[in-house]
Amino acid sequence: MRLKVTVAYNGANFVGWQRQSKGRTVQKTIEDIISVILNQPAEITSSGRTDSKVSALGQVFHFDSDLNIQPSQWQKALNAQLPEDIYIKNVCEVSDEFHARFNVISKRYDYCIQTGNYDVLSYPFVFQLNRALDLEKMRECAALFIGEHDFTSFNATPLEMIPYQIRTIKRLDIIDEGERVRLIFEGKGFLRYMVRMITQVLIEVGLNRLAKDDVILMFEENNKEACKLNAPPQGLTLVEVRYNDR
Amino acid sequence: MRLKVTVAYNGANFVGWQRQSKGRTVQKTIEDIISVILNQPAEITSSGRTDSKVSALGQVFHFDSDLNIQPSQWQKALNAQLPEDIYIKNVCEVSDEFHARFNVISKRYDYCIQTGNYDVLSYPFVFQLNRALDLEKMRECAALFIGEHDFTSFNATPLEMIPYQIRTIKRLDIIDEGERVRLIFEGKGFLRYMVRMITQVLIEVGLNRLAKDDVILMFEENNKEACKLNAPPQGLTLVEVRYNDR
Repeated sequence: MRLKVTVAYNGANFVGWQRQSKGRTVQKTIEDIISVILNQPAEITSSGRTDSKVSALGQVFHFDSDLNIQPSQWQKALNAQLPEDIYIKNVCEVSDEFHARFNVISKRYDYCIQTGNYDVLSYPFVFQLNRALDLEKMRECAALFIGEHDFTSFNATPLEMIPYQIRTIKRLDIIDEGERVRLIFEGKGFLRYMVRMITQVLIEVGLNRLAKDDVILMFEENNKEACKLNAPPQGLTLVEVRYNDR
Repeated sequence: MRLKVTVAYNGANFVGWQRQSKGRTVQKTIEDIISVILNQPAEITSSGRTDSKVSALGQVFHFDSDLNIQPSQWQKALNAQLPEDIYIKNVCEVSDEFHARFNVISKRYDYCIQTGNYDVLSYPFVFQLNRALDLEKMRECAALFIGEHDFTSFNATPLEMIPYQIRTIKRLDIIDEGERVRLIFEGKGFLRYMVRMITQVLIEVGLNRLAKDDVILMFEENNKEACKLNAPPQGLTLVEVRYNDR
Protein backbone atom coordinates (compact mmCIF):
# COMPACT_ATOMS: atom_id res chain seq x y z
CA MET A 1 0.00 0.00 0.00
CA ARG A 2 1.36 3.42 -0.97
CA LEU A 3 0.51 6.21 1.44
CA LYS A 4 0.46 9.92 0.74
CA VAL A 5 1.09 12.03 3.83
CA THR A 6 0.59 15.76 4.40
CA VAL A 7 2.84 17.09 7.14
CA ALA A 8 3.40 20.40 8.94
CA TYR A 9 6.62 21.30 10.74
CA ASN A 10 8.18 24.23 12.54
CA GLY A 11 11.57 24.69 10.91
CA ALA A 12 13.19 26.53 13.86
CA ASN A 13 14.94 23.51 15.33
CA PHE A 14 15.71 21.57 12.15
CA VAL A 15 18.66 21.82 9.77
CA GLY A 16 16.17 21.19 6.99
CA TRP A 17 14.05 18.42 5.52
CA GLN A 18 16.73 16.18 4.08
CA ARG A 19 18.46 13.47 6.10
CA GLN A 20 22.15 14.28 6.52
CA SER A 21 25.06 13.16 8.65
CA LYS A 22 24.79 16.01 11.17
CA GLY A 23 21.89 17.83 12.75
CA ARG A 24 18.20 17.18 13.35
CA THR A 25 16.20 16.76 10.13
CA VAL A 26 12.48 16.35 9.49
CA GLN A 27 13.03 13.38 7.16
CA LYS A 28 15.09 11.37 9.66
CA THR A 29 12.73 12.16 12.55
CA ILE A 30 9.76 10.79 10.57
CA GLU A 31 11.64 7.86 8.99
CA ASP A 32 12.88 6.67 12.38
CA ILE A 33 9.32 6.41 13.69
CA ILE A 34 7.96 4.70 10.56
CA SER A 35 10.91 2.27 10.63
CA VAL A 36 9.99 1.15 14.13
CA ILE A 37 6.35 0.60 13.11
CA LEU A 38 7.31 -1.26 9.91
CA ASN A 39 10.09 -3.10 11.74
CA GLN A 40 12.43 -2.40 8.81
CA PRO A 41 14.29 0.66 7.51
CA ALA A 42 11.77 3.06 5.96
CA GLU A 43 12.36 5.62 3.26
CA ILE A 44 10.04 8.54 2.65
CA THR A 45 10.01 10.61 -0.55
CA SER A 46 8.93 14.24 -0.29
CA SER A 47 7.77 16.77 -2.88
CA GLY A 48 11.21 18.32 -2.44
CA ARG A 49 13.54 19.37 0.33
CA THR A 50 13.15 22.50 2.42
CA ASP A 51 16.19 24.37 3.76
CA SER A 52 17.32 24.82 7.34
CA LYS A 53 14.85 26.94 9.39
CA VAL A 54 12.15 26.78 6.69
CA SER A 55 8.74 25.67 7.97
CA ALA A 56 5.89 23.81 6.26
CA LEU A 57 2.15 23.71 6.73
CA GLY A 58 1.54 21.33 3.81
CA GLN A 59 4.66 19.39 2.81
CA VAL A 60 3.79 16.04 1.17
CA PHE A 61 5.65 12.74 1.15
CA HIS A 62 4.89 9.14 0.21
CA PHE A 63 6.03 5.78 1.53
CA ASP A 64 5.09 2.12 1.14
CA SER A 65 3.76 -0.26 3.76
CA ASP A 66 2.74 -3.93 3.68
CA LEU A 67 1.05 -3.75 7.06
CA ASN A 68 -2.68 -3.84 7.59
CA ILE A 69 -2.81 -0.34 9.07
CA GLN A 70 -5.44 2.07 7.79
CA PRO A 71 -4.47 5.64 6.79
CA SER A 72 -6.27 7.20 9.77
CA GLN A 73 -4.49 4.79 12.11
CA TRP A 74 -1.17 5.77 10.56
CA GLN A 75 -1.96 9.40 11.27
CA LYS A 76 -2.74 8.69 14.92
CA ALA A 77 0.26 6.39 15.42
CA LEU A 78 2.68 8.88 13.89
CA ASN A 79 1.32 11.93 15.73
CA ALA A 80 1.44 10.03 19.02
CA GLN A 81 5.20 9.56 18.61
CA LEU A 82 6.32 12.67 16.74
CA PRO A 83 7.79 15.64 18.62
CA GLU A 84 5.67 18.76 19.05
CA ASP A 85 7.26 20.56 16.08
CA ILE A 86 6.02 18.01 13.52
CA TYR A 87 2.35 17.22 12.91
CA ILE A 88 0.79 14.83 10.40
CA LYS A 89 -2.28 16.57 8.95
CA ASN A 90 -3.49 13.83 6.65
CA VAL A 91 -2.71 10.31 5.45
CA CYS A 92 -4.45 8.74 2.48
CA GLU A 93 -3.97 5.69 0.29
CA VAL A 94 -2.83 6.36 -3.27
CA SER A 95 -2.03 4.20 -6.28
CA ASP A 96 1.44 2.67 -6.53
CA GLU A 97 2.11 5.07 -9.43
CA PHE A 98 1.80 8.14 -7.22
CA HIS A 99 5.11 9.92 -6.67
CA ALA A 100 5.35 12.85 -4.23
CA ARG A 101 8.04 14.63 -6.26
CA PHE A 102 7.36 13.73 -9.90
CA ASN A 103 3.59 14.24 -9.79
CA VAL A 104 3.62 17.78 -8.35
CA ILE A 105 1.37 20.18 -10.27
CA SER A 106 2.14 23.26 -8.21
CA LYS A 107 3.54 24.44 -4.92
CA ARG A 108 2.65 27.41 -2.78
CA TYR A 109 5.27 29.13 -0.64
CA ASP A 110 4.46 32.05 1.66
CA TYR A 111 7.10 34.48 2.83
CA CYS A 112 6.12 36.43 5.96
CA ILE A 113 7.73 39.74 6.90
CA GLN A 114 7.16 41.57 10.19
CA THR A 115 7.02 45.25 9.21
CA GLY A 116 5.79 46.39 12.63
CA ASN A 117 7.87 46.26 15.81
CA TYR A 118 9.99 43.22 16.64
CA ASP A 119 7.76 40.35 17.73
CA VAL A 120 9.16 37.90 20.30
CA LEU A 121 6.44 35.35 19.58
CA SER A 122 6.79 35.03 15.80
CA TYR A 123 10.54 35.50 15.19
CA PRO A 124 11.12 31.75 14.56
CA PHE A 125 8.83 31.81 11.51
CA VAL A 126 8.40 35.47 10.48
CA PHE A 127 11.34 37.55 9.18
CA GLN A 128 11.76 40.51 11.53
CA LEU A 129 12.39 43.39 9.14
CA ASN A 130 10.65 45.85 11.51
CA ARG A 131 10.48 48.57 8.87
CA ALA A 132 7.65 49.78 6.68
CA LEU A 133 7.55 48.64 3.04
CA ASP A 134 6.18 50.44 0.01
CA LEU A 135 3.77 47.74 -1.13
CA GLU A 136 2.72 49.53 -4.31
CA LYS A 137 6.30 49.59 -5.56
CA MET A 138 6.74 45.97 -4.58
CA ARG A 139 3.60 44.92 -6.45
CA GLU A 140 4.69 46.79 -9.55
CA CYS A 141 7.99 44.92 -9.46
CA ALA A 142 6.42 41.58 -8.57
CA ALA A 143 4.62 41.70 -11.92
CA LEU A 144 8.03 41.29 -13.62
CA PHE A 145 8.41 37.82 -12.08
CA ILE A 146 4.95 36.47 -12.88
CA GLY A 147 4.72 34.14 -15.88
CA GLU A 148 7.40 32.11 -17.67
CA HIS A 149 10.92 33.53 -17.35
CA ASP A 150 14.54 32.52 -17.32
CA PHE A 151 15.31 32.75 -13.58
CA THR A 152 19.08 32.18 -13.92
CA SER A 153 19.79 35.46 -12.09
CA PHE A 154 17.41 34.67 -9.26
CA ASN A 155 18.45 31.28 -7.91
CA ALA A 156 21.52 29.51 -6.55
CA THR A 157 21.36 26.26 -8.53
CA PRO A 158 24.57 26.05 -10.63
CA LEU A 159 23.93 25.99 -14.38
CA GLU A 160 26.19 22.93 -14.57
CA MET A 161 23.64 21.09 -12.45
CA ILE A 162 20.42 22.38 -14.06
CA PRO A 163 21.17 24.18 -17.38
CA TYR A 164 17.52 24.91 -18.14
CA GLN A 165 16.45 27.53 -15.57
CA ILE A 166 13.20 28.67 -17.13
CA ARG A 167 10.35 28.41 -14.66
CA THR A 168 6.78 29.71 -14.39
CA ILE A 169 5.44 31.71 -11.46
CA LYS A 170 1.67 31.48 -11.60
CA ARG A 171 1.00 33.80 -8.71
CA LEU A 172 2.95 36.36 -6.70
CA ASP A 173 0.60 38.23 -4.39
CA ILE A 174 1.65 40.77 -1.79
CA ILE A 175 -0.81 40.92 1.07
CA ASP A 176 -0.97 43.66 3.69
CA GLU A 177 -1.72 42.05 7.08
CA GLY A 178 -1.23 45.14 9.22
CA GLU A 179 1.92 44.46 11.23
CA ARG A 180 3.03 41.91 8.61
CA VAL A 181 3.35 41.55 4.87
CA ARG A 182 2.79 38.16 3.25
CA LEU A 183 4.18 37.23 -0.17
CA ILE A 184 2.39 34.29 -1.80
CA PHE A 185 4.29 32.40 -4.51
CA GLU A 186 2.71 29.69 -6.64
CA GLY A 187 4.41 27.73 -9.39
CA LYS A 188 5.10 24.25 -10.65
CA GLY A 189 8.63 24.27 -9.34
CA PHE A 190 11.18 26.60 -7.81
CA LEU A 191 14.96 26.49 -8.03
CA ARG A 192 17.26 26.70 -5.00
CA TYR A 193 16.76 29.95 -3.00
CA MET A 194 14.54 31.25 -5.84
CA VAL A 195 11.66 32.34 -3.58
CA ARG A 196 13.97 33.87 -0.98
CA MET A 197 16.09 35.71 -3.58
CA ILE A 198 13.04 37.21 -5.30
CA THR A 199 11.65 38.11 -1.87
CA GLN A 200 14.78 40.00 -0.88
CA VAL A 201 14.77 41.82 -4.23
CA LEU A 202 11.18 42.89 -3.55
CA ILE A 203 12.08 43.93 0.01
CA GLU A 204 14.86 46.16 -1.35
CA VAL A 205 12.36 47.66 -3.77
CA GLY A 206 9.90 48.21 -0.91
CA LEU A 207 12.64 49.98 1.06
CA ASN A 208 13.48 52.18 -1.96
CA ARG A 209 16.97 50.74 -2.19
CA LEU A 210 16.36 49.14 -5.60
CA ALA A 211 14.36 50.50 -8.53
CA LYS A 212 12.30 48.59 -11.05
CA ASP A 213 14.97 49.26 -13.69
CA ASP A 214 17.60 47.61 -11.49
CA VAL A 215 15.46 44.50 -11.36
CA ILE A 216 14.90 44.50 -15.13
CA LEU A 217 18.68 44.73 -15.51
CA MET A 218 19.21 41.75 -13.20
CA PHE A 219 16.80 39.74 -15.32
CA GLU A 220 18.60 40.73 -18.53
CA GLU A 221 22.05 39.89 -17.15
CA ASN A 222 20.94 36.28 -16.82
CA ASN A 223 23.84 35.13 -14.74
CA LYS A 224 24.66 33.96 -11.24
CA GLU A 225 26.47 37.18 -10.30
CA ALA A 226 23.56 39.50 -11.12
CA CYS A 227 21.78 39.13 -7.78
CA LYS A 228 23.41 38.43 -4.43
CA LEU A 229 20.29 39.06 -2.34
CA ASN A 230 18.67 36.32 -0.26
CA ALA A 231 15.98 36.74 2.39
CA PRO A 232 16.50 34.79 5.63
CA PRO A 233 14.94 31.30 5.77
CA GLN A 234 12.80 31.95 8.88
CA GLY A 235 10.17 33.81 6.88
CA LEU A 236 9.55 31.00 4.41
CA THR A 237 6.81 28.38 4.71
CA LEU A 238 5.82 25.66 2.25
CA VAL A 239 2.05 26.04 2.49
CA GLU A 240 0.67 23.59 -0.07
CA VAL A 241 1.69 21.02 -2.67
CA ARG A 242 -0.88 20.23 -5.33
CA TYR A 243 -1.30 17.00 -7.29
CA ASN A 244 -3.67 15.78 -9.98
CA ASP A 245 -5.79 13.98 -7.42
CA ARG A 246 -7.18 17.10 -5.79
CA MET B 1 17.55 58.44 37.37
CA ARG B 2 14.77 55.87 37.68
CA LEU B 3 13.84 54.15 34.42
CA LYS B 4 10.59 52.39 33.59
CA VAL B 5 10.98 49.66 30.98
CA THR B 6 8.34 47.81 28.96
CA VAL B 7 9.57 44.40 27.83
CA ALA B 8 8.26 41.54 25.69
CA TYR B 9 9.52 37.97 25.98
CA ASN B 10 8.78 34.56 24.55
CA GLY B 11 8.41 32.29 27.57
CA ALA B 12 9.19 29.03 25.74
CA ASN B 13 12.84 28.83 26.75
CA PHE B 14 12.64 30.42 30.19
CA VAL B 15 11.86 28.88 33.58
CA GLY B 16 10.04 32.10 34.36
CA TRP B 17 10.70 35.74 35.17
CA GLN B 18 12.27 35.44 38.58
CA ARG B 19 15.99 34.90 39.08
CA GLN B 20 16.63 31.49 40.66
CA SER B 21 19.54 29.14 41.23
CA LYS B 22 18.78 26.90 38.24
CA GLY B 23 17.54 27.58 34.72
CA ARG B 24 17.38 30.52 32.34
CA THR B 25 15.25 33.39 33.65
CA VAL B 26 14.18 36.68 32.07
CA GLN B 27 15.20 38.70 35.13
CA LYS B 28 18.76 37.35 35.24
CA THR B 29 19.22 37.70 31.46
CA ILE B 30 18.29 41.39 31.64
CA GLU B 31 20.09 42.13 34.92
CA ASP B 32 23.34 40.64 33.62
CA ILE B 33 23.33 43.04 30.65
CA ILE B 34 22.40 46.10 32.73
CA SER B 35 25.10 45.17 35.26
CA VAL B 36 27.77 45.25 32.57
CA ILE B 37 26.58 48.67 31.37
CA LEU B 38 26.37 50.09 34.92
CA ASN B 39 29.61 48.34 35.88
CA GLN B 40 28.00 47.22 39.14
CA PRO B 41 25.42 44.60 40.10
CA ALA B 42 21.99 45.74 38.89
CA GLU B 43 18.63 44.83 40.31
CA ILE B 44 15.40 45.22 38.36
CA THR B 45 11.95 45.23 39.94
CA SER B 46 9.03 43.97 37.85
CA SER B 47 5.27 44.38 38.13
CA GLY B 48 5.28 40.75 39.31
CA ARG B 49 6.78 37.45 38.30
CA THR B 50 5.50 35.29 35.46
CA ASP B 51 5.71 31.49 35.62
CA SER B 52 7.79 29.12 33.53
CA LYS B 53 6.69 29.11 29.84
CA VAL B 54 4.50 32.21 30.26
CA SER B 55 5.16 34.96 27.69
CA ALA B 56 4.78 38.73 27.92
CA LEU B 57 4.11 41.46 25.42
CA GLY B 58 4.04 44.25 27.99
CA GLN B 59 5.77 43.31 31.25
CA VAL B 60 7.11 46.37 33.11
CA PHE B 61 10.13 46.76 35.40
CA HIS B 62 12.10 49.65 36.88
CA PHE B 63 15.74 50.16 37.78
CA ASP B 64 18.03 53.02 38.79
CA SER B 65 21.00 54.41 36.93
CA ASP B 66 23.46 57.20 37.68
CA LEU B 67 24.87 57.20 34.16
CA ASN B 68 24.23 59.89 31.61
CA ILE B 69 22.40 57.57 29.22
CA GLN B 70 19.10 58.70 27.75
CA PRO B 71 16.07 56.35 27.80
CA SER B 72 16.13 55.82 24.02
CA GLN B 73 19.83 54.96 24.23
CA TRP B 74 19.09 52.46 26.98
CA GLN B 75 16.51 50.82 24.69
CA LYS B 76 19.00 50.50 21.83
CA ALA B 77 21.86 49.31 24.04
CA LEU B 78 19.74 46.64 25.71
CA ASN B 79 18.13 45.37 22.51
CA ALA B 80 21.55 45.16 20.85
CA GLN B 81 22.70 42.72 23.53
CA LEU B 82 19.54 40.83 24.46
CA PRO B 83 18.78 37.42 22.90
CA GLU B 84 16.09 37.17 20.24
CA ASP B 85 13.41 36.02 22.71
CA ILE B 86 13.52 39.26 24.74
CA TYR B 87 12.73 42.69 23.30
CA ILE B 88 12.65 46.07 25.04
CA LYS B 89 9.62 47.95 23.69
CA ASN B 90 10.02 51.18 25.60
CA VAL B 91 12.20 52.93 28.17
CA CYS B 92 11.17 56.17 29.87
CA GLU B 93 12.31 58.23 32.80
CA VAL B 94 10.02 58.26 35.83
CA SER B 95 10.12 59.89 39.24
CA ASP B 96 12.07 58.17 42.01
CA GLU B 97 8.75 57.38 43.67
CA PHE B 98 7.62 55.16 40.81
CA HIS B 99 7.51 51.47 41.74
CA ALA B 100 6.76 48.83 39.08
CA ARG B 101 4.98 46.53 41.51
CA PHE B 102 3.32 48.82 44.07
CA ASN B 103 1.95 51.35 41.58
CA VAL B 104 0.13 48.91 39.31
CA ILE B 105 -3.43 49.98 38.55
CA SER B 106 -4.36 46.98 36.42
CA LYS B 107 -2.94 44.10 34.44
CA ARG B 108 -4.17 42.42 31.32
CA TYR B 109 -3.50 38.74 30.71
CA ASP B 110 -4.58 36.94 27.54
CA TYR B 111 -5.01 33.18 27.39
CA CYS B 112 -4.92 31.77 23.86
CA ILE B 113 -6.44 28.40 22.96
CA GLN B 114 -6.05 26.67 19.59
CA THR B 115 -9.46 25.11 18.93
CA GLY B 116 -8.65 24.22 15.31
CA ASN B 117 -6.11 21.59 14.26
CA TYR B 118 -2.73 21.34 15.97
CA ASP B 119 -0.53 24.23 14.87
CA VAL B 120 3.24 23.59 14.67
CA LEU B 121 4.00 27.32 14.50
CA SER B 122 2.13 28.55 17.57
CA TYR B 123 2.44 25.66 20.06
CA PRO B 124 5.08 27.50 22.17
CA PHE B 125 2.60 30.28 23.03
CA VAL B 126 -0.90 28.96 22.25
CA PHE B 127 -2.43 26.06 24.21
CA GLN B 128 -3.19 23.29 21.71
CA LEU B 129 -6.61 22.07 22.80
CA ASN B 130 -7.56 21.22 19.20
CA ARG B 131 -11.23 20.79 20.05
CA ALA B 132 -14.22 23.04 19.56
CA LEU B 133 -15.53 25.03 22.54
CA ASP B 134 -19.07 26.14 23.31
CA LEU B 135 -18.35 29.85 23.66
CA GLU B 136 -21.87 30.78 24.73
CA LYS B 137 -21.68 28.46 27.73
CA MET B 138 -18.21 29.77 28.54
CA ARG B 139 -19.40 33.39 28.42
CA GLU B 140 -22.35 32.63 30.66
CA CYS B 141 -19.97 31.13 33.19
CA ALA B 142 -17.33 33.83 32.79
CA ALA B 143 -19.88 36.30 34.12
CA LEU B 144 -19.64 34.54 37.50
CA PHE B 145 -16.00 35.62 37.82
CA ILE B 146 -16.40 39.26 36.85
CA GLY B 147 -16.43 41.76 39.70
CA GLU B 148 -15.23 41.47 43.31
CA HIS B 149 -15.16 37.91 44.64
CA ASP B 150 -13.38 35.69 47.10
CA PHE B 151 -11.15 33.67 44.76
CA THR B 152 -9.88 31.25 47.44
CA SER B 153 -11.11 28.25 45.38
CA PHE B 154 -9.47 29.49 42.19
CA ASN B 155 -5.82 30.09 43.01
CA ALA B 156 -2.83 28.26 44.45
CA THR B 157 -1.58 30.85 46.94
CA PRO B 158 -1.79 29.27 50.44
CA LEU B 159 -4.13 31.11 52.81
CA GLU B 160 -1.30 31.12 55.36
CA MET B 161 0.64 33.33 52.97
CA ILE B 162 -2.17 35.65 51.79
CA PRO B 163 -5.28 35.25 53.98
CA TYR B 164 -7.30 37.90 52.14
CA GLN B 165 -8.03 36.37 48.73
CA ILE B 166 -10.72 38.75 47.54
CA ARG B 167 -9.84 40.19 44.15
CA THR B 168 -11.64 42.10 41.39
CA ILE B 169 -11.80 40.98 37.77
CA LYS B 170 -12.75 44.04 35.73
CA ARG B 171 -12.98 42.25 32.41
CA LEU B 172 -13.20 38.67 31.22
CA ASP B 173 -13.89 38.60 27.49
CA ILE B 174 -14.02 35.50 25.33
CA ILE B 175 -13.11 36.28 21.74
CA ASP B 176 -13.70 33.98 18.78
CA GLU B 177 -10.70 34.24 16.44
CA GLY B 178 -11.64 31.42 14.08
CA GLU B 179 -9.07 28.70 14.74
CA ARG B 180 -8.38 30.18 18.17
CA VAL B 181 -10.22 31.44 21.22
CA ARG B 182 -8.75 34.29 23.25
CA LEU B 183 -9.67 34.95 26.89
CA ILE B 184 -8.90 38.49 28.04
CA PHE B 185 -8.54 39.04 31.79
CA GLU B 186 -8.17 42.46 33.36
CA GLY B 187 -7.83 43.22 37.05
CA LYS B 188 -5.74 45.04 39.62
CA GLY B 189 -4.03 41.88 40.73
CA PHE B 190 -4.21 38.14 40.30
CA LEU B 191 -3.20 35.40 42.72
CA ARG B 192 -0.94 32.50 41.78
CA TYR B 193 -2.39 30.37 38.93
CA MET B 194 -5.66 32.35 39.21
CA VAL B 195 -5.94 33.15 35.50
CA ARG B 196 -4.93 29.65 34.43
CA MET B 197 -7.27 27.94 36.91
CA ILE B 198 -10.26 30.04 35.85
CA THR B 199 -9.30 29.41 32.21
CA GLN B 200 -9.29 25.63 32.68
CA VAL B 201 -12.65 25.82 34.48
CA LEU B 202 -14.05 27.73 31.48
CA ILE B 203 -12.50 25.22 29.06
CA GLU B 204 -14.22 22.37 30.91
CA VAL B 205 -17.49 24.30 30.67
CA GLY B 206 -16.89 24.85 26.94
CA LEU B 207 -16.32 21.11 26.50
CA ASN B 208 -19.54 20.34 28.42
CA ARG B 209 -17.62 18.57 31.15
CA LEU B 210 -18.60 21.09 33.83
CA ALA B 211 -21.91 22.91 34.29
CA LYS B 212 -22.50 26.41 35.59
CA ASP B 213 -23.85 24.93 38.83
CA ASP B 214 -20.57 23.08 39.38
CA VAL B 215 -18.71 26.36 39.12
CA ILE B 216 -21.09 28.09 41.52
CA LEU B 217 -20.48 25.23 43.95
CA MET B 218 -16.71 25.65 43.63
CA PHE B 219 -17.09 29.33 44.47
CA GLU B 220 -19.25 28.54 47.51
CA GLU B 221 -16.85 25.91 48.84
CA ASN B 222 -14.23 28.61 49.21
CA ASN B 223 -11.32 26.29 49.81
CA LYS B 224 -8.14 25.09 48.15
CA GLU B 225 -9.53 21.62 47.42
CA ALA B 226 -12.57 22.85 45.47
CA CYS B 227 -10.80 23.21 42.12
CA LYS B 228 -7.84 21.18 40.90
CA LEU B 229 -7.93 22.48 37.33
CA ASN B 230 -5.06 24.48 35.82
CA ALA B 231 -4.56 25.35 32.15
CA PRO B 232 -1.00 24.89 30.78
CA PRO B 233 1.29 27.94 31.00
CA GLN B 234 2.02 28.11 27.24
CA GLY B 235 -1.29 29.79 26.48
CA LEU B 236 -0.76 32.67 28.91
CA THR B 237 0.64 36.08 27.98
CA LEU B 238 0.99 39.19 30.15
CA VAL B 239 -0.20 41.76 27.62
CA GLU B 240 -0.21 45.05 29.52
CA VAL B 241 0.49 46.59 32.91
CA ARG B 242 -1.18 49.92 33.60
CA TYR B 243 -0.01 52.71 35.90
CA ASN B 244 -1.33 56.12 36.87
CA ASP B 245 0.94 57.81 34.38
CA ARG B 246 -0.84 56.61 31.24
